[in-house]
Amino acid sequence: MQLAILLYDGVTALDAIGPYEVLQAPGLGIDVRFVAREKGMKRTDFGRLGLMADYTLKETPRPDILLVPGTAHPQAVMGDPVVLEWIAQVHKTTKWTTSVCTGALGLAAAGVLQGLKATTHWLALDVLKQFGAIPTKERVVRQGKVVTAAGVSSGIDMALTLVAEEFGDAAAQTAQLLIEYDPQPPFDAGSPDKAPPQIVIAAHEEFRKLSQKSAV
Amino acid sequence: MQLAILLYDGVTALDAIGPYEVLQAPGLGIDVRFVAREKGMKRTDFGRLGLMADYTLKETPRPDILLVPGTAHPQAVMGDPVVLEWIAQVHKTTKWTTSVCTGALGLAAAGVLQGLKATTHWLALDVLKQFGAIPTKERVVRQGKVVTAAGVSSGIDMALTLVAEEFGDAAAQTAQLLIEYDPQPPFDAGSPDKAPPQIVIAAHEEFRKLSQKSAV
Repeated sequence: MQLAILLYDGVTALDAIGPYEVLQAPGLGIDVRFVAREKGMKRTDFGRLGLMADYTLKETPRPDILLVPGTAHPQAVMGDPVVLEWIAQVHKTTKWTTSVCTGALGLAAAGVLQGLKATTHWLALDVLKQFGAIPTKERVVRQGKVVTAAGVSSGIDMALTLVAEEFGDAAAQTAQLLIEYDPQPPFDAGSPDKAPPQIVIAAHEEFRKLSQKSAV
Repeated sequence: MQLAILLYDGVTALDAIGPYEVLQAPGLGIDVRFVAREKGMKRTDFGRLGLMADYTLKETPRPDILLVPGTAHPQAVMGDPVVLEWIAQVHKTTKWTTSVCTGALGLAAAGVLQGLKATTHWLALDVLKQFGAIPTKERVVRQGKVVTAAGVSSGIDMALTLVAEEFGDAAAQTAQLLIEYDPQPPFDAGSPDKAPPQIVIAAHEEFRKLSQKSAV
């Protein structure tokens, strides 16, 4: 079973690395590859980290699992016709097509989410509508073989759900225990429904600044 | 404020990327740099991903925050006298010295944890004793400026705790909301005290295999 994790300049690292860490467990036997339009180093968000794409899209025409991570600059994926065409093509033969955070906008722009319930980062939910998807405020949304996850850190929950579906509950629990995923955030502010109103406003403002800066 | 995240061949990606994603929020204004003994690409675990170290240890003599991520092959850090010497040196002037997972064994081998309570991946807790640390089964353990976190995914909780200490609760909550860290794991198997006994046995077995394989 082959997993292709899409990389591109501007990608949000944790969107990709959360699920990667769950799905790369040797016991699962998944052939994990990081892919991009061109091979080589892709810089995250504001350029602070380089992640290596070892394979091109062309070298990866039939992954069993597709994972599209997000970015603060969704045009990095939505504005790249070569990447969108590849997503649309490989989706025809995937066993699972997945996204984390605004990666869902890439799936949407490639036509994958038409008529489907889907989720993305809470700040981007409305955008899904423009592509005929049904924005759904849940952490992990499964529609047949299409699985979308909410913002950034939700990819860990999504990957565990995927492992359970594909390999069984015991495999998912073992993966969870190996990464000691027993979350104990010091605050309960991880969703706009739970965070204090002034924090939601602060996050909106921070995101506005994020969207203006660009490494892309 | 400068954050140095140590990279090396064999590093576990999520140990580094979980805290990175929290601490790189532009609103915090932290100068985040990935550092290594030599500049260049470091491969994770079994070589499936390359992460770029943009700075050498020598170029980073006085980080305000040190973060040592872990690995399934702790000798990658514990067996490198140059890295241990750098950890011991920079620790003298850090504001915070931190680790995730078996990164704590690196701190321990550098003499940083002598006489301190500390945590690490649940499978490695006993090793801490050999270096005079007091193994402590908690997700995040703070002893003055030294903060150690448990296995892999715990670095996210640690980083939020650190942001709260350094920048205040509102900054930590905003960071949490931006990465939508509202964890909803599909199982409650993330610690050996909660996972079913057969899962704990399976994780031990998987870890035994992990430790035998090596990208280092």
